[in-house]
Amino acid sequence: MKIILIGAGNLATRLAVALHAKGLTPACLYSRTEQSARLLSKRIGYAPYTTRLEELPTDGDLYIFAVKDSVLPDLLAQIPRCGGLWVHTAGSIAIEIFADYTHRYGVFYPMQTFSKEREINFDQIPIFIEANHNNDTTMLQQLAEQLSQRVYRANSEQRKYLHLAAVFACNFSNHLYTLCNRILSEHNIPFEVMLPLIEETAAKINDMPPAEAQTGPAIRYDLNVIERHKAMLDDETMRAIYDLMSRSIHQSAKP
Amino acid sequence: MKIILIGAGNLATRLAVALHAKGLTPACLYSRTEQSARLLSKRIGYAPYTTRLEELPTDGDLYIFAVKDSVLPDLLAQIPRCGGLWVHTAGSIAIEIFADYTHRYGVFYPMQTFSKEREINFDQIPIFIEANHNNDTTMLQQLAEQLSQRVYRANSEQRKYLHLAAVFACNFSNHLYTLCNRILSEHNIPFEVMLPLIEETAAKINDMPPAEAQTGPAIRYDLNVIERHKAMLDDETMRAIYDLMSRSIHQSAKP
Repeated sequence: MKIILIGAGNLATRLAVALHAKGLTPACLYSRTEQSARLLSKRIGYAPYTTRLEELPTDGDLYIFAVKDSVLPDLLAQIPRCGGLWVHTAGSIAIEIFADYTHRYGVFYPMQTFSKEREINFDQIPIFIEANHNNDTTMLQQLAEQLSQRVYRANSEQRKYLHLAAVFACNFSNHLYTLCNRILSEHNIPFEVMLPLIEETAAKINDMPPAEAQTGPAIRYDLNVIERHKAMLDDETMRAIYDLMSRSIHQSAKP
Repeated sequence: MKIILIGAGNLATRLAVALHAKGLTPACLYSRTEQSARLLSKRIGYAPYTTRLEELPTDGDLYIFAVKDSVLPDLLAQIPRCGGLWVHTAGSIAIEIFADYTHRYGVFYPMQTFSKEREINFDQIPIFIEANHNNDTTMLQQLAEQLSQRVYRANSEQRKYLHLAAVFACNFSNHLYTLCNRILSEHNIPFEVMLPLIEETAAKINDMPPAEAQTGPAIRYDLNVIERHKAMLDDETMRAIYDLMSRSIHQSAKP
């Protein structure tokens, strides 16, 4: 299968590395920036790359658009007409974005938080696929199953709620770790002391629903602690987050 | 060492079980409610228990107050005079709370999220200790080191910031998992699909600072996605959380 990969960001990088490890090295990479393209090419056996859309091979079997959501519409308008199956990797973008540009299209959404430099085991990453033709759904499923044990079919409507839910569970949780780190470093406490707690918080919900796993002053509705904590926060945004999250926990606890 | 344990909640339960496993079974348990006391007693070899403060042994070496923060002042006012070292297990309460009641006192704060029914490896839990006499600090340190490899000394000021930071990293993160679960269940998607993402989000920060690990629409400042996500949220509190967290992520990203 001749795969063309468009993008060299976090997701594109980890996907390219995972494909390469399975002998499915992209036949060509595209990135707007020379350096990103060259670096990613180097990681996957110096696969050919280009920074010019018009130089992309037009005889690919699969074009994977792994770019920022906001960039995709422009790219689609500029890319030379070519055959093959076009897929994007975004949670929030409906499959129909391709409809004006090509006939065979789909989505290949690996739901994970990717960083260029962090190795990740693709085998356990849920991949959600969708295509506008049954044959292509099957093809995407087979490809996804070469990378991961957790392949699901999801339509665009389901996928956009998956992405929204992932923003809460991943992006916002990670930001809470950042705020935690800020409090600790302001008081010269190393962030490492928090790692067992963070790990257990994430592990616990394998065994019980998160609402049942909830602990802390807000679920006990311990207003003394809540008020003292708020008074300790100089930063207005952090105080607002503390207040809103505590109220939301208390609301959720009501029968 | 004759240990008297006051409390039978989440923390008291897991602490009692951990002490019991090391041959340090409390000589007596107290809980306000008969059933909690009986259940916990059963878990630790039917250790004696009582629901009446006046029946507590007065010759204990160590009295551990593992109760809700809001309950501690009342308990201290009611408990019969007795010797030994008195400690509480709370992040947010200063050591001085004991000063009016006894001469030897301290804190034994295991920083973790505890649930009665979930087994936990105490060995990796950071325990922060403090006492008003050096001998007692040493005694608490030795006790803590029998339970965990991660024992630290922290004064009341540091501990209250540890607790505040833990609320962000643990209690609020867990609530985000609850909100994530709510979105998924409203769209008939099983929560299990989110577990690899949650696990990786928590694991990633072992290797990089959380600010560097941040991904998602808010850090990319992808306003299209952010606005679409907000429009998908019917619940006012969830929309407010989405908005506030996204703005906080964007603010944190500024140089």
